[in-house]
Amino acid sequence: MIVSPELAQFTEPLHLESGRSLNRFELAYECYGRLNDRKDNAILIGHGLSGTAHAAGRHHPEDFRPGWWDAAIGPGKMFDTDQFFVVCSNVLGGCGGSSGPSSENPDTGRPYALDFPVVTILDMVRAQVRLSDHLGIERWHCVAGGCLGGAQALTWGQHFSGRVNSVLSVGATAETSAHSLAFFEVIRETIRRDPNWNGGNYYGGPAPTSGLTLGSLIGMLFWMSPDAMDTRFGREKVKDGPQFTLGSEYKMQAFLQNIATNVERKFDPNTLLYVTRAMDYFDLSRGYPNLQGALESFPDRTLLVSYKTDWRYPPHKIERLAEAIRRVGRSVEHVTLESIFGHGAYLFDVEKLTPVVRKFLT
Amino acid sequence: MIVSPELAQFTEPLHLESGRSLNRFELAYECYGRLNDRKDNAILIGHGLSGTAHAAGRHHPEDFRPGWWDAAIGPGKMFDTDQFFVVCSNVLGGCGGSSGPSSENPDTGRPYALDFPVVTILDMVRAQVRLSDHLGIERWHCVAGGCLGGAQALTWGQHFSGRVNSVLSVGATAETSAHSLAFFEVIRETIRRDPNWNGGNYYGGPAPTSGLTLGSLIGMLFWMSPDAMDTRFGREKVKDGPQFTLGSEYKMQAFLQNIATNVERKFDPNTLLYVTRAMDYFDLSRGYPNLQGALESFPDRTLLVSYKTDWRYPPHKIERLAEAIRRVGRSVEHVTLESIFGHGAYLFDVEKLTPVVRKFLT
Repeated sequence: MIVSPELAQFTEPLHLESGRSLNRFELAYECYGRLNDRKDNAILIGHGLSGTAHAAGRHHPEDFRPGWWDAAIGPGKMFDTDQFFVVCSNVLGGCGGSSGPSSENPDTGRPYALDFPVVTILDMVRAQVRLSDHLGIERWHCVAGGCLGGAQALTWGQHFSGRVNSVLSVGATAETSAHSLAFFEVIRETIRRDPNWNGGNYYGGPAPTSGLTLGSLIGMLFWMSPDAMDTRFGREKVKDGPQFTLGSEYKMQAFLQNIATNVERKFDPNTLLYVTRAMDYFDLSRGYPNLQGALESFPDRTLLVSYKTDWRYPPHKIERLAEAIRRVGRSVEHVTLESIFGHGAYLFDVEKLTPVVRKFLT
Repeated sequence: MIVSPELAQFTEPLHLESGRSLNRFELAYECYGRLNDRKDNAILIGHGLSGTAHAAGRHHPEDFRPGWWDAAIGPGKMFDTDQFFVVCSNVLGGCGGSSGPSSENPDTGRPYALDFPVVTILDMVRAQVRLSDHLGIERWHCVAGGCLGGAQALTWGQHFSGRVNSVLSVGATAETSAHSLAFFEVIRETIRRDPNWNGGNYYGGPAPTSGLTLGSLIGMLFWMSPDAMDTRFGREKVKDGPQFTLGSEYKMQAFLQNIATNVERKFDPNTLLYVTRAMDYFDLSRGYPNLQGALESFPDRTLLVSYKTDWRYPPHKIERLAEAIRRVGRSVEHVTLESIFGHGAYLFDVEKLTPVVRKFLT
């Protein structure tokens, strides 16, 4: 599947939760499949923390890797493009073409860097509502995603239920936990402590890629479950490798070092500061008396998926969200799946997710 | 309790598992309580990854903090110094007075840095056997510890059962898991990526404390359980703090930043490379046909303690070790405790551990 990146430009100011505004902004997006005449077969996909709009297919036949959710999007796949028109947009604050810290600040002609305003997930979703208008889509058949994408889907349900028939959220709880607040702080700290970071003003010079790499390595410790690591690598040593050194003598460690040398150099470290901060703020009940009150206008079709091994977003917390949705009289299904991949299961274990999602979408 | 640090010097070569030798080495240690005339009331305590010999009491009345296991060691405490003579020694490779990368290499007159040989937990224990001789202790009543200290206690049981009556190991499995191999690799990588690290040759100049700080922050994400963080900090914001910034707006995050500014400046980052590598190698069955074969000469009294929330060293893995000890006909008790502190529970939840250990020791 060869796909083309698209760019939508918006010149009406976007008022942000912080009180600041973006007078103009852009969103990068990609489309897979065809919008039908009734325009009722559109699915919006939200990406995770390090994602972009490039969810499926390849831009060029010789591209080494396809989009990040290629296993899930395409003809006959989980999001069946023979049936659905699937759209994925890079979040506001991102670095895959949408306006973010690496974009040119129209007021100065230079990159925003940390002058880019702090954005929330509701801000990201409001920008996506503009994209919906741009595409002429009045109602999404479904808004779907995992992790940050799940938080986006839930926010769509909370604030724009008139424009979405159903919500599909994988590995997302009603609010970011204290542990994740800590995790995101450490990730940001790895970037800020890279000498190249320079207060965020590194554009045109060397980027803080070492900090970004460390952040990716730390992330690995969290998305891949301990059982998955035992199963896949165990304590096997690198064949004919060194002994009694301080190097990466185990296959598990060589795997990490391989990731470290292959970290996406195109990903902007400042964007990681912004998207993790948006996740920090994520709490459906923020500004409401309680969670139930926050869900009063939620749509009547929701699928929540959790994984037994996802200890950061555990099934019991996702069930709590399901209960709150039920208490406001909306129908919701919560499915807990097995996987050794923990929080990363929605990306790496699409096979198990597929029948559950396909049933939900039809 | 005012205590004095002690230093033992050894001039007989210590042959290491790597094939290298240390012609001379030193071990720092501390003693609490009194050795009785029969010399049968001595307990050896092994410390964790960032520990030293300073386990209890204060060196000076005005010391801000006591030793790292002060809640557990003292008159009437878990290790009752009215009854027992308690010894804690800094591991070989450590930086609290024992020979390690920051010690002077007698061959060059300069710090060893990475010329210090890679040591294993068996090497550390063999050094402790020398200390036992130095102290005139033929048999320890118990060798005890948590995490790395637990691994030391198990190694004592495996290799020197003639010199230890009982083994007490908290939060230690029979082998280091793939996840911990990954975790330790990331910790080492944070240190190596600090520009001050300089291939380990930083003595006399600025130390890679930024990398050490990051390593400590990452460690925080692992020893404190997600539930503990939810309970203690939740999503509470810093009072009158900034809003819509990229700073530490949540109490959880301010707590981490406080740790970052208070990281023990005296701890040598190179030591963390060595002790984590020693943990990497830890596998009771290494060099044996299987785990059972490795336990043939284990002593007949062992207490293993696990914590339900310690997902890195989970109860089911510690039970597997208990079963292997039972299969060689030795008596072993495995107790699983509740705590919100996960792998750090043995340090921060001594109250629950105390009755279990006191019963075992008498």
